[in-house]
Amino acid sequence: MRENKSERIRIKDIALKAGVSVGTVDRVIHGRSGVSESSKKKVEEILKQMNYQPNMYASALASNKKYNFSCLLPLHTQEDYWMDIEAGMRHAVGMYKDFNIRLNISYYDQYESGSFAKEGKKMIATMPDGVIMAPSSEDETMSTVLQLKEKNIPFVFIDSNIRSLNPLSFYGQSSHSSGYFAARILSLMAEHNEPVVIFRLIYDGRLGSNQQRNREEGFREYIQNNCPDIKLYELNFYVKNPENNDKIMEDFFLAHPEVNCGITFNSKAYIIGEYMQKINRKGFKMMGYDLLRRNVKCLKEGTVDFIIAQQPTEQGQSCIECLFEHLILKKEIKAYNYMPITLISKENIDFYLDAHLRTNNI
Amino acid sequence: MRENKSERIRIKDIALKAGVSVGTVDRVIHGRSGVSESSKKKVEEILKQMNYQPNMYASALASNKKYNFSCLLPLHTQEDYWMDIEAGMRHAVGMYKDFNIRLNISYYDQYESGSFAKEGKKMIATMPDGVIMAPSSEDETMSTVLQLKEKNIPFVFIDSNIRSLNPLSFYGQSSHSSGYFAARILSLMAEHNEPVVIFRLIYDGRLGSNQQRNREEGFREYIQNNCPDIKLYELNFYVKNPENNDKIMEDFFLAHPEVNCGITFNSKAYIIGEYMQKINRKGFKMMGYDLLRRNVKCLKEGTVDFIIAQQPTEQGQSCIECLFEHLILKKEIKAYNYMPITLISKENIDFYLDAHLRTNNI
Repeated sequence: MRENKSERIRIKDIALKAGVSVGTVDRVIHGRSGVSESSKKKVEEILKQMNYQPNMYASALASNKKYNFSCLLPLHTQEDYWMDIEAGMRHAVGMYKDFNIRLNISYYDQYESGSFAKEGKKMIATMPDGVIMAPSSEDETMSTVLQLKEKNIPFVFIDSNIRSLNPLSFYGQSSHSSGYFAARILSLMAEHNEPVVIFRLIYDGRLGSNQQRNREEGFREYIQNNCPDIKLYELNFYVKNPENNDKIMEDFFLAHPEVNCGITFNSKAYIIGEYMQKINRKGFKMMGYDLLRRNVKCLKEGTVDFIIAQQPTEQGQSCIECLFEHLILKKEIKAYNYMPITLISKENIDFYLDAHLRTNNI
Repeated sequence: MRENKSERIRIKDIALKAGVSVGTVDRVIHGRSGVSESSKKKVEEILKQMNYQPNMYASALASNKKYNFSCLLPLHTQEDYWMDIEAGMRHAVGMYKDFNIRLNISYYDQYESGSFAKEGKKMIATMPDGVIMAPSSEDETMSTVLQLKEKNIPFVFIDSNIRSLNPLSFYGQSSHSSGYFAARILSLMAEHNEPVVIFRLIYDGRLGSNQQRNREEGFREYIQNNCPDIKLYELNFYVKNPENNDKIMEDFFLAHPEVNCGITFNSKAYIIGEYMQKINRKGFKMMGYDLLRRNVKCLKEGTVDFIIAQQPTEQGQSCIECLFEHLILKKEIKAYNYMPITLISKENIDFYLDAHLRTNNI
């Protein structure tokens, strides 16, 4: 039989060894006053000898301190990837409810220049103990980060990372690798090297997010290296003109009836799935990102074949845990934490969702 | 700004409302004696009114009770799926080290009749507070379960489930669904409905595990429903005669040179991958289960294309958490907990392993 023991070193034993009272040991451990220098030194030596690990839970509970965490996310709708991130954060706050953690979430408009900095400033004015942010561009994010550093407030990046801004930690997916993996799956779907169309979401003349751009780069790299004969088309939708989407697809498929396989690197695969449903076109092979409710519906109805999930609930939960471990348990924190790249089809989605509900204790 | 508050109701406020001392409230909450019936009733009413949630961490830490958890697993080698399960359990025990949890792991021989019952009996003799078991067949597992029920010792099944034995909870993958999903992926790999060979591991004239049988059933169901033109071959290896494996494959591929796609429902995909490496056959498309080190090597070298992982570390960790929540936090427990069915290729494996290392704090 192998054994895993987790015995605690008792305060009583330390007091005995140091020849002081239990109260004195307790004061030294929790850094309270009322202890002579010589007693303090003696106790600290014994603690070191015995490799004493303070019971951080007990210390934190005893301290009764309140912690304010703040979070800054892009504005989003109710039915969104970001909702799952919030749910994960709320779940973690609930798990630690005995430790007096309070979470404030505020939002910035990712399409409005200056919005991140404005909301960041408001957030910092509340003097939070720790911060979680989904960064905007490096320029937009910089001023907020400088203020946080000046005030010594630890911050964690979620969803996408800007290494040069040196966060305490990062939780999210590697978008480049995720696109690379998507290409491996799509190349299996595209039999006989048939052509593939990339559906893109454009805002102000450019791709609407860094994630989209990085995933597409990773995707193209795989195709280039492994199946360069696959012809890639691009089809652009415009964030500001969703009413034109159907017409855009109609025109494209009229001009390219041979294209029977597509992918999108944003979270709106349902635009294509719902269109195929509407025109009753069967068998168009489609892949996308993120388990939005409308994407899940398409997946189950068969108009979207595969979705890559990026564990938003875990991202949210992990960021809170990270601040908890850093601020309260004083643990060392790992800087980069990449989420698994998870392939979902209608055959395995229920188990993925089941695990998520479990995480959220629903 | 939305807000998530986790304020505690203070004992002081309860005492004030009930018109009793703080000590009395504390005694009622922790079920200690020395309180009059009328005071007890008054406090309990107030607790109910205020929807008081006891601080279970504080209660458990204060009680200073020791918990012995026992676990019964199949005998296994160092390089195995079960090692990850153990690592997950050890990680969780470490997480809860402040709560005096001790874990004893013992082993049974899954190929020896009576071994489970024998080891189960020994385990119960140590009077554990909670038990985790990877069940053997229903017959073999039954007697141990009856003794546990008689002694009111809660038990959790891991890896595979026997519903009729009614465990406190189950953590593992749905093997049938997992085979069904595998077939979806394999059918993409088998272009033009090319034939597929199923590699099987036979012990004493039958499939070596329930998992293998259930996965194969799910796999055949998908093929039958969706691509019945795919011809399926079977090729049997024998647990007791691994030295014959190469010859068995040589003979098969001599007779069936057209077969270029295979799957195995046990954890030994590396048998095939290493053989292909040895005879320098490129492009044989292969799929299997579990991230054993030798499978991972084949995956990275390209002799195995896909592996389905069943989150052994999470299984182990969750089982300990389950006993912790049941015995110490007195929470309600969900009966069936299915693991995600996760597809791994060389393109996404690093992120999966990264997340695992994170879980294990390595």
